[in-house]
Amino acid sequence: MPDNIQVLIDSIPEGRLKAENYRVAHSSIPELGPNEILVETHAIAITAGTRAGLQGSASYAGAPKTGVPMNSTGIGKVIESNTAEFDLNDMVTGPTGWQAYSKHKPQALTKIDPEYNPVDYLGPLGINGLTAYFGLFEVGQIKANETVMISAAAGSVGHMVGQMAKIAGCSVIGVCGDGKKTEQLIGRLGFDAAVNYKGLSYRDELKAATPNGVDIFFDNTGGSILGSALRRLNVGGRVACCGVVSQYDTNDPEPGPKGIPGLLINKRLTMKGFLVFDYIEKYAEARKKISKWLISGELHHLTDEVIGLENAPDAFVDLLSGGNIGTRIIKLH
Amino acid sequence: MPDNIQVLIDSIPEGRLKAENYRVAHSSIPELGPNEILVETHAIAITAGTRAGLQGSASYAGAPKTGVPMNSTGIGKVIESNTAEFDLNDMVTGPTGWQAYSKHKPQALTKIDPEYNPVDYLGPLGINGLTAYFGLFEVGQIKANETVMISAAAGSVGHMVGQMAKIAGCSVIGVCGDGKKTEQLIGRLGFDAAVNYKGLSYRDELKAATPNGVDIFFDNTGGSILGSALRRLNVGGRVACCGVVSQYDTNDPEPGPKGIPGLLINKRLTMKGFLVFDYIEKYAEARKKISKWLISGELHHLTDEVIGLENAPDAFVDLLSGGNIGTRIIKLH
Repeated sequence: MPDNIQVLIDSIPEGRLKAENYRVAHSSIPELGPNEILVETHAIAITAGTRAGLQGSASYAGAPKTGVPMNSTGIGKVIESNTAEFDLNDMVTGPTGWQAYSKHKPQALTKIDPEYNPVDYLGPLGINGLTAYFGLFEVGQIKANETVMISAAAGSVGHMVGQMAKIAGCSVIGVCGDGKKTEQLIGRLGFDAAVNYKGLSYRDELKAATPNGVDIFFDNTGGSILGSALRRLNVGGRVACCGVVSQYDTNDPEPGPKGIPGLLINKRLTMKGFLVFDYIEKYAEARKKISKWLISGELHHLTDEVIGLENAPDAFVDLLSGGNIGTRIIKLH
Repeated sequence: MPDNIQVLIDSIPEGRLKAENYRVAHSSIPELGPNEILVETHAIAITAGTRAGLQGSASYAGAPKTGVPMNSTGIGKVIESNTAEFDLNDMVTGPTGWQAYSKHKPQALTKIDPEYNPVDYLGPLGINGLTAYFGLFEVGQIKANETVMISAAAGSVGHMVGQMAKIAGCSVIGVCGDGKKTEQLIGRLGFDAAVNYKGLSYRDELKAATPNGVDIFFDNTGGSILGSALRRLNVGGRVACCGVVSQYDTNDPEPGPKGIPGLLINKRLTMKGFLVFDYIEKYAEARKKISKWLISGELHHLTDEVIGLENAPDAFVDLLSGGNIGTRIIKLH
């Protein structure tokens, strides 16, 4: 059996994250205790939210540590099992982190249904898809014929939010950071409109794209895009606060947008933050619905794949500056 | 019959409001059309929220106008009536504005129950009391044994929010701008604690006063006090966004506090803006409960009275810098 390969957090980033904040390490493959499972990682998902975990105690994840593998969700194969619940060669998903081998208790792992592409468990059937689902249906309380605006709309969560909102019978406007992304959102995923927030006429374009205002803003970025959304929201509008990617890659987050809380009062808006883990008891029910949409072809999973664990740091730095379309996946096998 | 005396908006304030933004005018008493009522104003309430109406289109009230009487709620006596619904000498409350006489359609007026002190209709039984009630029970979804924090806690709305939260079985912390107010909140109104936000050790004192964190923040100020509350709120906490007095008296509102939306996500907070008018169908039901509390002595109405309509501009300027305790009332009769 080969050695374990790990990508460790080497230092806590000062300012923007750099690939040099990580280092590759070789170690022995973990030995199993009772009721543990050894997983060989096949692929991991890189998601912006994990950047918040490197910011210190402001994150729900607590203070960051160095010398440990970077955390991430992964998919892989069971290669050793001390439990009755998982057998050799079972495909599973769980918090593998950035490493080739990891050991887990059974409750940390979910079996992958052989009917699906395992990679879908890093997207629609995994944390990203569930985040999109609960943010839209539970937090956003989406209703047919509403207008839904999404920031980081071409990202791992955003591109699924838009498709789910279309399935729910809504008009969908995506905000993203380049023209190639806007094309894909409209052309490949059926968004009604997409606007590049880096464009000089962003606010005018957003206004033109939302002639009936906005009922739900699914926010993955915070910052100035949140500010622009507050101005487009209709009376009674809702903001599902999912992520703050605009403020992750720094030690010094900006103040909140102007108009908080003034616009919230004038327009009776609700802003509600959420973490997908709070809905864990409804995961199975949500996965059933999402599976149906995948099978019917109503929901597409865009992936953006990179080969080799050693490329994870560069792929993460690039993702934080908006380099990805869909779910960024690092393939190991 | 004497002339009408009005205090008109003479100019839209640049920066902070000054008494010189108003002027006193004499005019003839309005002539009634069909289905109209003439009211002689006895007293008006001065409330910070009306400052927002002078800021331009950002307010729910739309763009401000000059040459018209300043708006306010008042109480007064019917001295002429072209409707069957109101008789001579009925005491009423309605949007009298800063003037001695005003005419109204019947739907704009509410009869004052002779069992109560008419001034209570500018406080607990009026817009201020209803705002406190709906903000706490509907927006805040208050439950017994929670901790409730209130900004502008000695103000017309705030001092009632705290008492209602005590009635609901909660622990109550008020934030206000001077030591005399903190004493009154604790000594006269039964707040558990009160903290002066202008003190150098404000954040430490707030922390000490909220050992179990905060479950509901009833926010009348926005700005840095909102920022301090976001840091004390517990997971699942709620912010009832009622007013933004910290940002009214300016042409250039500050950005929102840091940590929006980051803290909303990490702590799954909900911020919900509201206007009392949205609950109009429940006013009667709320007034019944509030009346009961007044009669039982559980709810006290603190008033801060000034005599003479011509003193309204100075009284308003002073209120915006925190000069009042309780409801500031201008008495005409």
